[in-house]
Amino acid sequence: MSGSAQLLVAVLGRGIVGADKPVAFADDFGLTRGDGCFEATRVCTGPDGVSNVEHLDRHLERLQGSASRLAIAAPADHLWQEAVQELLGQWHTPGEAVLKLVLTRGRDFEPAAPPYGQVLLAPLDAASLRERDGIDVLALNRGHPLGTFADAPWLLGGVKSLSYAVHLAARREAMARGAQDALFVTTDGYALEGPTSALVWALDGALFTTRHGDTGVLASITSAALFEAATAEGMTCGYDVILAADLTATDGAWLLSSVRGVAPIRRLDGHGLAFDPALSARVTRLAGF
Amino acid sequence: MSGSAQLLVAVLGRGIVGADKPVAFADDFGLTRGDGCFEATRVCTGPDGVSNVEHLDRHLERLQGSASRLAIAAPADHLWQEAVQELLGQWHTPGEAVLKLVLTRGRDFEPAAPPYGQVLLAPLDAASLRERDGIDVLALNRGHPLGTFADAPWLLGGVKSLSYAVHLAARREAMARGAQDALFVTTDGYALEGPTSALVWALDGALFTTRHGDTGVLASITSAALFEAATAEGMTCGYDVILAADLTATDGAWLLSSVRGVAPIRRLDGHGLAFDPALSARVTRLAGF
Repeated sequence: MSGSAQLLVAVLGRGIVGADKPVAFADDFGLTRGDGCFEATRVCTGPDGVSNVEHLDRHLERLQGSASRLAIAAPADHLWQEAVQELLGQWHTPGEAVLKLVLTRGRDFEPAAPPYGQVLLAPLDAASLRERDGIDVLALNRGHPLGTFADAPWLLGGVKSLSYAVHLAARREAMARGAQDALFVTTDGYALEGPTSALVWALDGALFTTRHGDTGVLASITSAALFEAATAEGMTCGYDVILAADLTATDGAWLLSSVRGVAPIRRLDGHGLAFDPALSARVTRLAGF
Repeated sequence: MSGSAQLLVAVLGRGIVGADKPVAFADDFGLTRGDGCFEATRVCTGPDGVSNVEHLDRHLERLQGSASRLAIAAPADHLWQEAVQELLGQWHTPGEAVLKLVLTRGRDFEPAAPPYGQVLLAPLDAASLRERDGIDVLALNRGHPLGTFADAPWLLGGVKSLSYAVHLAARREAMARGAQDALFVTTDGYALEGPTSALVWALDGALFTTRHGDTGVLASITSAALFEAATAEGMTCGYDVILAADLTATDGAWLLSSVRGVAPIRRLDGHGLAFDPALSARVTRLAGF
């Protein structure tokens, strides 16, 4: 085993396979056209080697939603759950790990072939841990005005598709310019989301995140969990939009994702954002991190 | 061998592999994030079983350009050419076939792994042949205004990336509404390109195609070949933009691609377009089909 020794892979219908063995066919639509969807979540393993997968049911529900929008017949939840359990049976490293579910349309030249599903389990990367302390963020034009997705379902707004080349390119651009992440902004200046994260901001004691639907942003499971916990503690939470330029006037802003967790935005395009350590710690705790 | 008996696959660095054997790793960025690029072109095989690959050099040049924009170190041209030659050595079916080159960033959890390259050779599908006689096309909003891509390279305008989920969703939408293909249109009404084809229109004896660069459209190899041949015959050719609504006032319009060739647009959103059989035959011939 080489550097991938810590990567575990299960293929739906086949079970655990060696991470150093190829699994996908050359004509898999996922490989050739980014035609499929995915989910990623965090696995926490205790000193006793027992693991907990966070929000697996919600991720499966969102995966089914993405698959439905893509007209892919997703495998039943219990097949994913069984694959996850198989992987967890082999995973006893205390600490944090990342679990990734990938679903593709299946094979181009085997029309009878079913959709392809796989689950990966791997250690959390060091950068994610570091970035929980704070990140510099670059605002990048997403190319469309606010509201574009309302009547254009083929643009796949809200779908966590495998077609993430632009998301990765935006992050590369941000890193090349000395930031750690990007924030997508509409052509009319509204803040949307990060390439792989949701935006949350605080204003006058309330928490907000970008509204879904017409904005095309992904419905974040982490911010939904945050809002539920915050509401239970009496905080006001809402779905709204904000101009990127107005983020400097908030009481703080964060990028939330299922694996990295809560990353406070310390600077946006070089402009410092408000950062209240107590508030940030509270948001982090309420989000489950 | 099953239904994929006619599919041939070569992996760069490995040569020809069985099409019924998995080739890609579970953590390949192509499979998990649509992070890579591709090309497709036509192979014509004569009654003697000898094959000709169309414009391979131009496709390799465009692939290198896409890879460069994605910051992927593409394998040298001769490695692709050798893989293609290996496949052609196994291919003697007279008629038309499709050759696909796929390049991905490589493996997520094996940072030392090189980019992954594969070449597929398969028979041309029947729909492509049929659609050369004419297609009904549905105009679909691409979500951005004209000129979006001028200053936003991370949006990957002009890059033939593997992230084609929206392209395929648009085509599904068109087919669900009884058309055979889609035409992407900007939020301000300009015709861009098809999901996998370039738009060409005729006006007053001249031919036009959508200009590249700020429009984000892919530089079409088929329309470049058409323009070279047409210019040599004394026709005027130009790169421009046109409102989708103005296509009904042209002398004809076509969707051009490397495999399907020249597909005349007979109706756009149900409105008949001019169709001159002699002009369409000439465009088809000049494009090399």
